[in-house]
Amino acid sequence: MYTVYLAGEIHSNWREEIITACKDYDVIFLTPEYDHTSSDDIGKNVVGDQENDFYNDHVSAKINSIRNHTYIKQADIVVVKFGEKYKQWNAAFDAGYATALNKKLIVIHPGEFIHALKEIDAAASAVVKSQSQVVDILKHLIRK
Amino acid sequence: MYTVYLAGEIHSNWREEIITACKDYDVIFLTPEYDHTSSDDIGKNVVGDQENDFYNDHVSAKINSIRNHTYIKQADIVVVKFGEKYKQWNAAFDAGYATALNKKLIVIHPGEFIHALKEIDAAASAVVKSQSQVVDILKHLIRK
Amino acid sequence: MYTVYLAGEIHSNWREEIITACKDYDVIFLTPEYDHTSSDDIGKNVVGDQENDFYNDHVSAKINSIRNHTYIKQADIVVVKFGEKYKQWNAAFDAGYATALNKKLIVIHPGEFIHALKEIDAAASAVVKSQSQVVDILKHLIRK
Amino acid sequence: MYTVYLAGEIHSNWREEIITACKDYDVIFLTPEYDHTSSDDIGKNVVGDQENDFYNDHVSAKINSIRNHTYIKQADIVVVKFGEKYKQWNAAFDAGYATALNKKLIVIHPGEFIHALKEIDAAASAVVKSQSQVVDILKHLIRK
Amino acid sequence: MYTVYLAGEIHSNWREEIITACKDYDVIFLTPEYDHTSSDDIGKNVVGDQENDFYNDHVSAKINSIRNHTYIKQADIVVVKFGEKYKQWNAAFDAGYATALNKKLIVIHPGEFIHALKEIDAAASAVVKSQSQVVDILKHLIRK
Amino acid sequence: MYTVYLAGEIHSNWREEIITACKDYDVIFLTPEYDHTSSDDIGKNVVGDQENDFYNDHVSAKINSIRNHTYIKQADIVVVKFGEKYKQWNAAFDAGYATALNKKLIVIHPGEFIHALKEIDAAASAVVKSQSQVVDILKHLIRK
Amino acid sequence: MYTVYLAGEIHSNWREEIITACKDYDVIFLTPEYDHTSSDDIGKNVVGDQENDFYNDHVSAKINSIRNHTYIKQADIVVVKFGEKYKQWNAAFDAGYATALNKKLIVIHPGEFIHALKEIDAAASAVVKSQSQVVDILKHLIRK
Amino acid sequence: MYTVYLAGEIHSNWREEIITACKDYDVIFLTPEYDHTSSDDIGKNVVGDQENDFYNDHVSAKINSIRNHTYIKQADIVVVKFGEKYKQWNAAFDAGYATALNKKLIVIHPGEFIHALKEIDAAASAVVKSQSQVVDILKHLIRK
Repeated sequence: MYTVYLAGEIHSNWREEIITACKDYDVIFLTPEYDHTSSDDIGKNVVGDQENDFYNDHVSAKINSIRNHTYIKQADIVVVKFGEKYKQWNAAFDAGYATALNKKLIVIHPGEFIHALKEIDAAASAVVKSQSQVVDILKHLIRK
Repeated sequence: MYTVYLAGEIHSNWREEIITACKDYDVIFLTPEYDHTSSDDIGKNVVGDQENDFYNDHVSAKINSIRNHTYIKQADIVVVKFGEKYKQWNAAFDAGYATALNKKLIVIHPGEFIHALKEIDAAASAVVKSQSQVVDILKHLIRK
Repeated sequence: MYTVYLAGEIHSNWREEIITACKDYDVIFLTPEYDHTSSDDIGKNVVGDQENDFYNDHVSAKINSIRNHTYIKQADIVVVKFGEKYKQWNAAFDAGYATALNKKLIVIHPGEFIHALKEIDAAASAVVKSQSQVVDILKHLIRK
Repeated sequence: MYTVYLAGEIHSNWREEIITACKDYDVIFLTPEYDHTSSDDIGKNVVGDQENDFYNDHVSAKINSIRNHTYIKQADIVVVKFGEKYKQWNAAFDAGYATALNKKLIVIHPGEFIHALKEIDAAASAVVKSQSQVVDILKHLIRK
Repeated sequence: MYTVYLAGEIHSNWREEIITACKDYDVIFLTPEYDHTSSDDIGKNVVGDQENDFYNDHVSAKINSIRNHTYIKQADIVVVKFGEKYKQWNAAFDAGYATALNKKLIVIHPGEFIHALKEIDAAASAVVKSQSQVVDILKHLIRK
Repeated sequence: MYTVYLAGEIHSNWREEIITACKDYDVIFLTPEYDHTSSDDIGKNVVGDQENDFYNDHVSAKINSIRNHTYIKQADIVVVKFGEKYKQWNAAFDAGYATALNKKLIVIHPGEFIHALKEIDAAASAVVKSQSQVVDILKHLIRK
Repeated sequence: MYTVYLAGEIHSNWREEIITACKDYDVIFLTPEYDHTSSDDIGKNVVGDQENDFYNDHVSAKINSIRNHTYIKQADIVVVKFGEKYKQWNAAFDAGYATALNKKLIVIHPGEFIHALKEIDAAASAVVKSQSQVVDILKHLIRK
Repeated sequence: MYTVYLAGEIHSNWREEIITACKDYDVIFLTPEYDHTSSDDIGKNVVGDQENDFYNDHVSAKINSIRNHTYIKQADIVVVKFGEKYKQWNAAFDAGYATALNKKLIVIHPGEFIHALKEIDAAASAVVKSQSQVVDILKHLIRK
């Protein structure tokens, strides 16, 4: 049995593809908050407007880190997807966090990022291009 | 006494500015390899050409990780600089690695990256814009 | 799923407010002993009167530490409330204990303690003024 | 040989008494920043005025935590003094932090705090009233 | 909820007294092998006669250590009883093993052993004379 | 209750003998992938042909390490069998990995390997010749 | 290079024999307090008479534990001697403490204690009868 | 600065080649005992003849493990060489031990062992064929 944390980009529904395909297998999936607006605004909504962009982001990011870091600690395997858009530094941060805790890392990224992601790929147990490859790996790992 | 690892971009000489300014203080500085070409080509040069871009990068990145991960483990404080250019996913990865090992993190980045770096800033003990601010913090920390 | 330890003052029923509001959510709450008299007298009652104020307190505090430290270790998140009265050094001690174990810390305190609690707030993932804000944060963290 | 961190109140020169008395012994002393103003203002001075009391304190406290937490990690023994004045929650926090890391704790406090400090005394290897008692203990520990 | 390992002497049925009294409480009890002959002879019976007293004991003790050390690691609390007879060095060894792993220690021993057991009592969260006192402590710890 | 990982050779069905004999006992068994072809070809099948023997093996071995290392971490006891054939370096590697993580090690090997396996036997809690001896040890360890 | 802690009985000068014989080798020796009276009375002398045998012993034992536990943590190898006299439960406690921290253990004891010390011998890397055997082992370990 | 442990076969002088080539660099080398006879016979010579092949090997292997395991723990990098001859299970065991402790692993082996060593190569930061390649890697890692 494995606990798998699905880190990385939250602008597409790539997690559903993996979770649905593995729904009959003995895998527990953990994820960050999916709802981008809720994730960005939790600080302002609950702690209050900090009247400063840096601190509004800071309060939200600290609250969301409770979920992200706790779930990485609970996981055996961390899957990180790097998509085509955005800086995605949080995805790289989560990959580093997972590596230092000795979690097994699976990285999904398009071929064009080979050079830019070489340090993260070097820490991974598998580097693939698609969600379906992650599903195949998880099904392989769970075989009796 | 502190051991400080200077992670992040290797396209400018920002590290020298900090090291020189602190040269009379009780601080040991550790750095990744500065020489970009040497860093990229170590795999091909020593292990041999893998005849494949992914694996040429992979072999080099794995060898360089010996230095990066060992030095982060030896450090008390990790300073990570995000510059204006490139993906810099390795900088974010090092920040995550350091955080999970409970190292104290200082992040340098221009104001425009506030939103993109919010998860990393949330893990930092200080977020600044310039090397001279890092120098001021280190001098403060080392005061008798 | 999270395990949450509710540390700090035991002179009001603030814990009930959080536990009741989250009763339909996937959160396990752990608490110190609520009954102040039982907590203070466990040493005298079970081990016997030590005929010395320091040792009567000492024996009780050591027995209660079995619960407090064990539950902090079992927790993912530690919520610490600083109320208006008393020294509350045990609350600050628990916050430090939780921080060193890499637990995520949420601190509740009135605005007047901003300066006195700055070191503890600096270690927290969220600083709020009320129990209902903790409830909102926990509900945010548990969202699918 | 021991490394000893002297935590707690910074409003009197109690640390000097211990350091001077042990100057011929094989003990390394580490301390927080002594200069109260420098400690409080480092954030404003280096990172800049946050235009908000909470965040001015926050930035300073986070920078100072680099020193405090790093030095507790480097120490074998942590001495914490609770004086007559102020909340001193940071002293209690440091005691908890040190305890969770399995550091040996020596607590100094006047007799009137027996009940309020019982949880911290319960975690200590020695509870004394004066600096000279700490000196006697350190000299005992270092005997050949 | 607590997991409690009952270490120490196996020549009386003191464990039953605690387990029976707590049978309606949320406590999991773990114990070493009760059957003294089985415990002593497991090596000879399964691995074979080593034709040497030292090695016959050695093989049995190593096999039994699988149970003892694994269960101490699984426990939150370790109760160690020192009875009137025998060397009981294994009980003291288990107490040291548990202490180094930061387990909470409760020691049962008659008053006459105060001086001989002072180092172990110094590491304990409670020192008592009888099983019924352990039961009272466990019931106190499990109170809602 | 114990979790037992059955490491080592995958060319015979020795694991079934242990699992079947213990099926009524409170033991959870974890194993590597049994299917040799699937294990060797997972890289080629899912990540794609690397057009290079070293990298085809490398990709498969890294994916399989997700299972092996995760399960060793989840185990209390690791049983390693060295059979008559093949290099079996992975079995020795798993034994070292388990030892460094403080797992209890049981080694099965024929008498002829006494000298070649002396370093691994030295780290073991039991060294036996057959699966039925492992079954006897597990049944002994699980006795009430 | 090794750091070696010499634990156990303090009623004979067995430590000197080892330290003197290894004085030209690259070994650092750490020891508990040799002076039995000083060791027993440190609590009464420094903290004050507790007017109670248990607490007088308790205060001394806690202070001495600062030395013993700190030095075991600093050591690579722990040598424990069991002599002919006294309970020596502290020696067994130190052996357990060292084992749980993964220190290498060497045990010295006369042949008559084979059965009583079997659990401790089972955790040892060497079991010998004399100090000169320990010297021979250390000299072997330090060979270039 | 790095500490490097040179594990693996002791039948050739491969270690000298690396140590000599790096003698002007800031690298500390640690090694197992080179003298094969001394290594095999230390048990018999110091502890005494166990009158049994298994136990004579066992006593020697346990004493030698003091050196091997202590030095791996002290190392940042572990280099393991697999030569053409012998089982070399101890080399594979050391590689597993180092990997679980998060040490960086460099493996030297001839091309013919690619398949048999795939699990160990998968854990390595570099896989090479010769000592001179290890020297090149170390010189690269130590560059200013």
